[in-house]
Amino acid sequence: MSYKELKREVFEANLELQRRNLVIYTFGNVSQVDRDKGVVAIKPSGVSYDDMKPEDIVIVDLDNTIVEGTMRPSSDTKTHTHLYRAFESIGGVTHTHSTYATAWAQAKQSIPCLGTTHADYVHGEITCTRELTDEQVNGDYEEETGVQITDAYVDRDPKAAPMVIVAGHAPFTWGKDAAQSVYHAALLEEIARMAYLTRTLDPNTAPLKQAVLDKHYLRKHGKDAYYGQSK
Amino acid sequence: MSYKELKREVFEANLELQRRNLVIYTFGNVSQVDRDKGVVAIKPSGVSYDDMKPEDIVIVDLDNTIVEGTMRPSSDTKTHTHLYRAFESIGGVTHTHSTYATAWAQAKQSIPCLGTTHADYVHGEITCTRELTDEQVNGDYEEETGVQITDAYVDRDPKAAPMVIVAGHAPFTWGKDAAQSVYHAALLEEIARMAYLTRTLDPNTAPLKQAVLDKHYLRKHGKDAYYGQSK
Amino acid sequence: MSYKELKREVFEANLELQRRNLVIYTFGNVSQVDRDKGVVAIKPSGVSYDDMKPEDIVIVDLDNTIVEGTMRPSSDTKTHTHLYRAFESIGGVTHTHSTYATAWAQAKQSIPCLGTTHADYVHGEITCTRELTDEQVNGDYEEETGVQITDAYVDRDPKAAPMVIVAGHAPFTWGKDAAQSVYHAALLEEIARMAYLTRTLDPNTAPLKQAVLDKHYLRKHGKDAYYGQSK
Amino acid sequence: MSYKELKREVFEANLELQRRNLVIYTFGNVSQVDRDKGVVAIKPSGVSYDDMKPEDIVIVDLDNTIVEGTMRPSSDTKTHTHLYRAFESIGGVTHTHSTYATAWAQAKQSIPCLGTTHADYVHGEITCTRELTDEQVNGDYEEETGVQITDAYVDRDPKAAPMVIVAGHAPFTWGKDAAQSVYHAALLEEIARMAYLTRTLDPNTAPLKQAVLDKHYLRKHGKDAYYGQSK
Repeated sequence: MSYKELKREVFEANLELQRRNLVIYTFGNVSQVDRDKGVVAIKPSGVSYDDMKPEDIVIVDLDNTIVEGTMRPSSDTKTHTHLYRAFESIGGVTHTHSTYATAWAQAKQSIPCLGTTHADYVHGEITCTRELTDEQVNGDYEEETGVQITDAYVDRDPKAAPMVIVAGHAPFTWGKDAAQSVYHAALLEEIARMAYLTRTLDPNTAPLKQAVLDKHYLRKHGKDAYYGQSK
Repeated sequence: MSYKELKREVFEANLELQRRNLVIYTFGNVSQVDRDKGVVAIKPSGVSYDDMKPEDIVIVDLDNTIVEGTMRPSSDTKTHTHLYRAFESIGGVTHTHSTYATAWAQAKQSIPCLGTTHADYVHGEITCTRELTDEQVNGDYEEETGVQITDAYVDRDPKAAPMVIVAGHAPFTWGKDAAQSVYHAALLEEIARMAYLTRTLDPNTAPLKQAVLDKHYLRKHGKDAYYGQSK
Repeated sequence: MSYKELKREVFEANLELQRRNLVIYTFGNVSQVDRDKGVVAIKPSGVSYDDMKPEDIVIVDLDNTIVEGTMRPSSDTKTHTHLYRAFESIGGVTHTHSTYATAWAQAKQSIPCLGTTHADYVHGEITCTRELTDEQVNGDYEEETGVQITDAYVDRDPKAAPMVIVAGHAPFTWGKDAAQSVYHAALLEEIARMAYLTRTLDPNTAPLKQAVLDKHYLRKHGKDAYYGQSK
Repeated sequence: MSYKELKREVFEANLELQRRNLVIYTFGNVSQVDRDKGVVAIKPSGVSYDDMKPEDIVIVDLDNTIVEGTMRPSSDTKTHTHLYRAFESIGGVTHTHSTYATAWAQAKQSIPCLGTTHADYVHGEITCTRELTDEQVNGDYEEETGVQITDAYVDRDPKAAPMVIVAGHAPFTWGKDAAQSVYHAALLEEIARMAYLTRTLDPNTAPLKQAVLDKHYLRKHGKDAYYGQSK
């Protein structure tokens, strides 16, 4: 894929954030990696979605050096590249401050799997990371935010839970490309909203039983998945 | 009604789900039965509402065998056909994961009749089914979801409560045709939202008194109904 | 005003209900009285806002006899005419099942005056009526709903509180004409929403102090009011 | 800047209130000061956003005397001019009754800094003022509302917290000009909503740790800020 095509895909995925009501103003950013070229295309920092043009998307390498582009890349770039280096199976990353997912992040609680809507997309809870230490905050903060996330996946396949909430901060999601990472951001927001409503209706709701959780996740994602059209 | 007309009605009813904000992405599905021909028209699995065309609607018989169509029918087809076989008075079925109704399903609570908005459409509580056993989940899951629902109607007329919530999952609604089943899905979502707000404002709110419940339901649905225009 | 003009005003006020998101489907109804002619124009029963035409509005007298119109008037007509007979200062009445106001009605709680948004429009609490007795429900129900409301105003000027919530049911509002009664319905919904949020954030919030309540109400409505432009 | 240009900027900023869903009907008002000319342009009182024209904006001096304009200025004008006199660094002021911020005002609670969304814009809590005394209410009320706000900033830089909530009333925000004060009003509403959701999910959530609060505020606003594009 040419840089131009890569920028176009990342541009479109960023606009989708706004169409799905996941961001206001300059909140949020989406990126996509080209593994062959070893580069990442990402939203420029602090630019509004209405003003942004495809050529404003910045190309950086996996060590955060600008390869092409005249604008400064997202201030969260180091978190994105950390995730691409750590999770080899992913192709796109989205960061938002979507309202309900952020409320869970602020409450520093993982989102338990309370129903099949959640189980259709995530195999188990949506983890809230531990908090950063003061040393991490005052060190290389955006890089450490990536560490905060990957530390939560030491024993977990990132594809089985393509969404995480960062304690005190907000969500990150990923997917096979930029578009799918935005799709996961939108699903997370809806799952977070349903879980909020469930827990405020009954703070002691038990998680979904394991058999149903497995059934729903695997009918969509297992080797014998039968949801959707054959591809 | 020709297959073509049946598909058109089911297509339109599925689009209404999106217009009423009851679904995002490929969530949800609507079907309609033709009792004379013994067939059901239903949404194809995993197709987005923006891409779907009338000819994509799949025709199956009441035993789930495809009669016409090139796409795979909704993964929930067996639940729909179970309901058509068990409830002879119904003509359309809708399944959504609408937010507030799903929150009640996740809390595994029936929605009590708290006001006249509810009583205008449902004669009594909106039942939350019992949970499936592990055997049911690992058996013929979508068929068993239908059993889960019909078990809750052993002593109840499905017309007096054209909506149910499946524990840990989400709502199913029905009506005389596909369009009315969507109408009931939208009403359920609004009733579920009002009940959520009422119960979070006061967890101990008493249900509506029986005399008012009867009055409101019967002025719309009884033999002496006087709501609306004569037909 | 001619019947035609009266119908047009009532038609427009009913459409405003839908534009302000106060109703779905056929919910709600608005009327306006012509005191000189002794007639009330009101929405027809069970007609959707998208299908309704100005000529569908029904004219009844204050004893509920149809004077002009081919459709059946709203099933709530007797409640409207009761209010016009009891409250001589009012010219329009609106009934909705707007979500937050209805939640307070279902909780059978009056809305306390918690802030200046409320005090700008209502001088004191927004009262929730007592419940109907079974005899009232099984008698002339819609007339008794009017009685339920006017009983709550024995010692209160209806202009100082142009909105009420009917226990277990939903709100009624009024004003100098149909349009203003809809305006009050929209304000009530926003006030009810703010009060819901305040009370779920802190169930023990104290009402606004009396001096501020008086100040805000009177700067808009007292004889020395100084809000808005001179008229 | 000419009066005409100043009015145009204030007109546009007022319309943005409606586009951002921060106001209904005639709620809210925005102003901008011209420090050189010693005048403030502000919305006229009680005029709807749909009817307002740029020439309806009223010009007053810092002592509230009308300099240009045929309409009565906002009834909150004295609060605006008080803020311009007290806070020399600000250029625009916005007052709304936006829903979630007003709920916190009604609960008479400051909004604690619970996450980075808040820390990106405000260095510490968003303060809820103390309540007015009866003497203040019955005195020069709108002037005293300004005093209520500036009393809360005796030891605080208004630029470090460009938003405040007035107990029992609603928010005021400010910025370098009218447009930025509206931007802060929209951010406040989103921060207030997230904080509401967090606290209703877990009433005991701890505030964000100080190191992260400082990091996020300073990466956007400190002398070494690195968010956004160089200007």
